[in-house]
Amino acid sequence: MELRIPKAVFDRLPRYYRYLGDLMDLGINRTSSYDLAERMSYSATLIRHDMSTLGDFGRLGYGYDVPYLHTKISEILGINRCHNIIVIGSGNLGHAIVNHSNFAQYGFVMKGMFDVDPRLIGMVIRGIEIQPLDRLETFIQEQDIQIAAVTIPKNKADNLVDRLVRAGIKGIWNFSHLEVNVPENVVVEDVHLSESLMKLLYQMNHR
Amino acid sequence: MELRIPKAVFDRLPRYYRYLGDLMDLGINRTSSYDLAERMSYSATLIRHDMSTLGDFGRLGYGYDVPYLHTKISEILGINRCHNIIVIGSGNLGHAIVNHSNFAQYGFVMKGMFDVDPRLIGMVIRGIEIQPLDRLETFIQEQDIQIAAVTIPKNKADNLVDRLVRAGIKGIWNFSHLEVNVPENVVVEDVHLSESLMKLLYQMNHR
Repeated sequence: MELRIPKAVFDRLPRYYRYLGDLMDLGINRTSSYDLAERMSYSATLIRHDMSTLGDFGRLGYGYDVPYLHTKISEILGINRCHNIIVIGSGNLGHAIVNHSNFAQYGFVMKGMFDVDPRLIGMVIRGIEIQPLDRLETFIQEQDIQIAAVTIPKNKADNLVDRLVRAGIKGIWNFSHLEVNVPENVVVEDVHLSESLMKLLYQMNHR
Repeated sequence: MELRIPKAVFDRLPRYYRYLGDLMDLGINRTSSYDLAERMSYSATLIRHDMSTLGDFGRLGYGYDVPYLHTKISEILGINRCHNIIVIGSGNLGHAIVNHSNFAQYGFVMKGMFDVDPRLIGMVIRGIEIQPLDRLETFIQEQDIQIAAVTIPKNKADNLVDRLVRAGIKGIWNFSHLEVNVPENVVVEDVHLSESLMKLLYQMNHR
C-alpha cells in the first residue's frame, strides 16, 4: 500500500533522518517524542503527529526504535537504494556538488561531469573526469544515470534539457535559470540561489 | 501602507522580475498578461491575479508598463537598495557564491570572506581577501554587513551564529546543517542541498 504523506510532513523527513542518524552515531537506539523534540526544536506533539502519518512506529512506554525508524524513513525517501548522478557544468557550483560529502550517505553516486569548455575536458575531480557534452547520451545510457544536476548558464544550455530527457534522465536538479519543459514522467527540482537570497531579504525587511 | 502579499505570489516575484528585466534588455517597454503568460508558462489569469495583489499596475487596452512594473517589484523585494554580504567558508560553495554573477544585479554586494583554515587566509578571490574568523566582528561593524552566508560544516562552526548575531548580522543564509537559534529580529533562510536532492528523488519515485 502506498502511504500518502502530507507535503509538510515529507519536507521534515530529511531532517528526521539526519537526527536519527546522529543518534545512531552516538549509540542511542531508543528515543521518545520528548527527547526528539528537545533535540530538534520541534514540539513533541508535532513529532507524534508526523510519525503517525508514516505508520505506527512508536510504542507506549517504549518510544521509538531509532534504527528501525531510520530505515523506514530511508525507504520512504527512496534513499535505501543507489541513484546515479551526472553534473553538467564544472564551475564552482558543479565542484561543490561533486565534492559534497553528504550525498553519498543518501545513496547518491556522482558518476560523471560534463562541460562545454574544451580547456576543462579531461580534468579529473574526485576521480571523476570532465567529459565533453557530445558524450552525454552514450554515458547516460551506459552508466544508467537517472539524475542530472544542471549548473551551466542558461545561454550555454541550448537543447540540453531535451537531450537529457531523450537520453533517459528522470530527474533534473536545476541550478540554472533554464525554463525546463519536460514530459510528465520527468521531474524538475529548481534551486535558484538568487531567489533564496531575495526571500531572506524580504523577510529581513518585513520583520 | 504596507502591502500584504500572499506567500505564493511573493515566491513568484523574483521570476517576474527576471522576465521583466529580459524584456527591458530586448527594448520592450510594454507587455500584456497574455504575452507574459506565453513567455513564462503561467496562465494570463494567474498573472493578472498576481499583479492585482501588488497594486493596480495594468491599464485596460494598454497592458503593463515594463520598466515601471520592474521598479515596483524591485521595491517590494527590497532589491532597489544595496545589501552587504560576507561569506563564511571559502570552499567550493563559498566560491560559487562569491562568483555568482547574478547577485550584484539584485543589489547584493559581496564584501568579505572568512575561513578557519590558516592556509587559505590572505588568498584573494574576485578581489575579496579571505580573512581569519577573529576579524569577523570588527569587519561586520566597520563594513556595515547585514547578511552572512554560512557554508562551513556544522562541526567547524562553534558559536558562529551567536557571534554573527552579536556583531549585528540581520540575515543568515544557511548552507550548513547548523541548527540556528536566533533572536526574533534575525532571519534565517536555509538552503539544504541534500534535502532538495531527496525531494527530487521522492517526486521521481511517486510519479
